[in-house]
Amino acid sequence: MAHTVKVNPRVLEMQYAVRGPIPQRAVELARQGRRTIPCNIGNPQALGQRPITFYRQVLSLLEDPATLVRGRGNAAHLEIADEVVEMAREMVEASLTGPGAYTDSAGFGFVREAVSGFIDRRDRVADRGGVASDPNAVMLTDGASGGAVYVLEALISGPRDGVLVPIPQYPLYSATIARCGGVMVGYYPDEVRGWALSRDTIEDPLRQAQSEGVTVKAIVVINPCNPTGAILDEASMREVVAVAREHGLAIIADEVYQENTYGRPWTSFARVLGGEDVPLFSLHSVSKGFYGECGHRGGYLEVRNPPFVEGTDASLLEILRKQASVNLCPNTMGQFLVHLMVSGPPPDTETAATFVRERRQVLDDLHTKATMIRGFFERMENVACYGETGAMYLFPRLGTLPPGSGDFEYCMALLEETGLVTVNGAGFGQAPGTHHLRLAFLPPFELIEEVMPRWVEFHRRYVSG
Amino acid sequence: MAHTVKVNPRVLEMQYAVRGPIPQRAVELARQGRRTIPCNIGNPQALGQRPITFYRQVLSLLEDPATLVRGRGNAAHLEIADEVVEMAREMVEASLTGPGAYTDSAGFGFVREAVSGFIDRRDRVADRGGVASDPNAVMLTDGASGGAVYVLEALISGPRDGVLVPIPQYPLYSATIARCGGVMVGYYPDEVRGWALSRDTIEDPLRQAQSEGVTVKAIVVINPCNPTGAILDEASMREVVAVAREHGLAIIADEVYQENTYGRPWTSFARVLGGEDVPLFSLHSVSKGFYGECGHRGGYLEVRNPPFVEGTDASLLEILRKQASVNLCPNTMGQFLVHLMVSGPPPDTETAATFVRERRQVLDDLHTKATMIRGFFERMENVACYGETGAMYLFPRLGTLPPGSGDFEYCMALLEETGLVTVNGAGFGQAPGTHHLRLAFLPPFELIEEVMPRWVEFHRRYVSG
Repeated sequence: MAHTVKVNPRVLEMQYAVRGPIPQRAVELARQGRRTIPCNIGNPQALGQRPITFYRQVLSLLEDPATLVRGRGNAAHLEIADEVVEMAREMVEASLTGPGAYTDSAGFGFVREAVSGFIDRRDRVADRGGVASDPNAVMLTDGASGGAVYVLEALISGPRDGVLVPIPQYPLYSATIARCGGVMVGYYPDEVRGWALSRDTIEDPLRQAQSEGVTVKAIVVINPCNPTGAILDEASMREVVAVAREHGLAIIADEVYQENTYGRPWTSFARVLGGEDVPLFSLHSVSKGFYGECGHRGGYLEVRNPPFVEGTDASLLEILRKQASVNLCPNTMGQFLVHLMVSGPPPDTETAATFVRERRQVLDDLHTKATMIRGFFERMENVACYGETGAMYLFPRLGTLPPGSGDFEYCMALLEETGLVTVNGAGFGQAPGTHHLRLAFLPPFELIEEVMPRWVEFHRRYVSG
Repeated sequence: MAHTVKVNPRVLEMQYAVRGPIPQRAVELARQGRRTIPCNIGNPQALGQRPITFYRQVLSLLEDPATLVRGRGNAAHLEIADEVVEMAREMVEASLTGPGAYTDSAGFGFVREAVSGFIDRRDRVADRGGVASDPNAVMLTDGASGGAVYVLEALISGPRDGVLVPIPQYPLYSATIARCGGVMVGYYPDEVRGWALSRDTIEDPLRQAQSEGVTVKAIVVINPCNPTGAILDEASMREVVAVAREHGLAIIADEVYQENTYGRPWTSFARVLGGEDVPLFSLHSVSKGFYGECGHRGGYLEVRNPPFVEGTDASLLEILRKQASVNLCPNTMGQFLVHLMVSGPPPDTETAATFVRERRQVLDDLHTKATMIRGFFERMENVACYGETGAMYLFPRLGTLPPGSGDFEYCMALLEETGLVTVNGAGFGQAPGTHHLRLAFLPPFELIEEVMPRWVEFHRRYVSG
C-alpha cells in the first residue's frame, strides 16, 4: 500500500474536545506519575461515586443463571433480598433469552414497554389530553449517543441540510453533523440571563441560515444543559416548540440529565409538546442522574410524530430501525439497566429504602460539591458562573485573560499546575470574545477542598500575567 | 413540521437482509402464536445454547462489588471457585474503575494487552521473524461491527472510492459502504471449488473497477466465511496479501468465526502477513465461536501497518481513535468478556476442566448439527452445499426454481410452511442466475430432526411447482 491514504475529510475534520488535547496531556502526566483529577468528563464512578446497590445486585444475578435457577429464598447467603432475586428472575423470563443473545434491534420489548410506562407516569401527558408513549416508538441504544447519531444520520440528506444547535453544546452534535456533512447552525442562549432562550435567540440564526440556502431540519435542545448546567423554564420550551412547528423542524431533546436538577423543577419536551404534531426525538441514558453507570452504555430514544419519508410510504421510525439493525442490537446489560432505571426497586421493601437513601446521598453530594466550587469561583477575579446548578457541570466565564492566552492555554496551564483536567470553552463553542471552561463537579469533597485553593492561587497569578 | 421529510438517500438505500422482510414476517407469525425457528442469524443462545459457566461467573462477580470485597475464600456458598473470584478481583483492580465508568475510548489498557498476548500466542508470528502485536494498535469495540464501521468510514473519502467485498458477503459491509457513499466492488470466490480464491478472482474485478475510475482502497475477507462457511487455505490468503501489496490495498480481515472450524486448520491474516508492510485491520468478537455471547457486544479491532493520513502527520490509527472517542467507549461488560475470551480460565483448575468440557461440547454439537442438516440437503433435488463446514452457517444452492420464484419467494414459503427463518441468497449477493439461502445450524437436535423432514417435503412440492 502507499504509505499514505486519503481519509474521509469529514472524519478528518470532526473534533471532540472532551477527549481532545487537554485530556491527552493529562494521560501523559499520569504516566509520569503525576496525580490528575479527571473533571473533563461526566464520569462519576471514575471519581469514586459508588454504584447503586440495587442495580448492581440485579445485574449480577442476570449474569448468573445458576443462582436464578435456585431462585427465591436461596440467595440469603448472597446478602441479596428475595425481592431482588425475584425481579432478576422476572426480567430474564420477560427477555426470553437473558443477556447472551442478540435482541430485537430496537431492544427487548418488555424494556421498551417499561420505558413508555415511565414516560407516561413522569409526564402525565395523558392526564392533560395528550398522547401516551408508544413502546413501538422507543428504541434502546448504547448510551444516548447512539440514538442521536441515528437521527442526525437520517435527517442530514445533503450538504445544505442544517441543524440548530445551542452554543455552547455537547460536541457529540458538532462532531456528528460534521461527519454527516451537514451544516451546524448555532443559536446562543443568553448567558447573563442564566442561559435563557427567547424566540429571537432561535429564529435569528434560523432565518440567517435559510437566507444562505440552508434547509434547517431540526433543533437540538440539551436540557438540563451540557456544558452549562442550565435548566430551561417552560416558557423557553414553548418557544422552541412554536418555532419548530412554524418552521417545520424536528426537536431533538437531549434529556440525559433530567435527574440532575437539585430541587429545581424540570419538564420534559414530551410534556410541553402535549398533543401537538411536531416530531420529537427524546434521549435518556443510564450514564448520568444518580446512577452514573457510564460504562454500561444503556440509553433510549423515544420518537413522537415521526414524519413520513419523502418518496416512500415509510415513516422515519422505520428508517431508524433499519439503521439500528445494521448494528444488530444494543448491549443487553445496558438494556436491562435501562429497565431498572425506569422501573425502580420493588416498592415498600428494605431494598427500596436503601435505594432511596443512596439516591438522595448521591444527589445531595453533587449539589454540595457544585456549591462549594462556586464559592471558590467567587474568590477568582472576573470569573462568573451564570445560571443555577444543573447537570454535572459548571461552565464559568473566565473574564479577560493575558495577551496571547485563550481558554485553551488557561486550561492547559491549570492542568500542569494543579492536575485538574477540564475542557476549554472553545471545545463546546462560545460567544465570540468570551472564554470559559467546563468542569464536572464530581471529585470527592476532600479533593475539592485541596485543589480549589490551588486553582484560586493559580488564577491570581495567571490573570496578572 | 411538514409531514414528510427528505431522508439521507444513502441511509434510505442501504439494505440489511439478516433483519429484513423474512425475519420481519417471522415476528408477525410469532405474534399470531406460530412457532418460528430463528435460523436467520447466528444467535446461539436464542436457540438454547448454554453460556460458558466460567465467563458468566466472572461477569456476575464483576457487577457485585460486595462479594469481591469479601474476596477469596468467601464465595464457596456461591458455588464459585476461589480462583474465579480471584480472577474477577484482579480484573476489577486492573480496570481501576470496574464496570461503571467510561473507559479509554479504545477500551481498558489491560484488556488490550491481553488481546495482543493472545494474538502473539495464537499466531507465533514473532517466532517466524514477524512483528509482535501492539496493544496500542488494538481497539476494543461493541462487537466486531463497530471496528469495521470505523475503518470503512475513515477509508471511504468520496463517491469514487471502492472496497473489494466477497460475494456472497455479510451485509454489514454492503450496508456500511452504501451509507458511506462508496462503491462496493464484488469478487466471486469459486463456489464449486469450495469457495476458493485465486489471483484472477480478485484482480479481474479490481482492474475492471479501476478502469471505471474507482479508487479501490481495501479488500474485505471473511474467514471463516459468513455466509458460506468456507475456510481459506494459506495459498488463497497469500494471493490476497500479494494483490493488496501490489495494488496498495488495506486488508480488512473479519475473523470472528476463527473458533468455528470443526477440526480444520485455520490461519490468521496477521500470521500470513508476517513482517510484510501491508495495512491489516483484523476483527474478532465474543459473539461467535463456542462463547456465543452475542448480547454482550464485545469485540476488538487489531491494526497492523496503519498508513499515514494524506496531508497530515497522523497515522490512520489516530483517526480511528478519534472516531471511537465520539462514542465515548465500548460497553465495559463486553470489554471484560473480551478479556476472558483471550485469557481463558486459570490453568490446572477444576474451573479450567469444566471450561474445556463445555467448549468441546458446544463445538462438537455444532459440527454434528451441520452434518445432520447436510444429510437432509442430499435428499433435496438439485440442492448442493459446496465446501466444508465452517462458521455457523450453511449456504446451499437451490438449483432451478419454478418460474416466477427466486430465493426470496422460496424462503418466504419455507417460513410459512415450516416456521424456519432463513435469509435468501440475494441478501448476501450471489452469482447471477443462482439461488441460495443461508441457514444458521444452531437449533437443538430434536428440532432439527423434526423440521428438516418437513423441509425436504416442502422442497419436493415447491420445485415441482
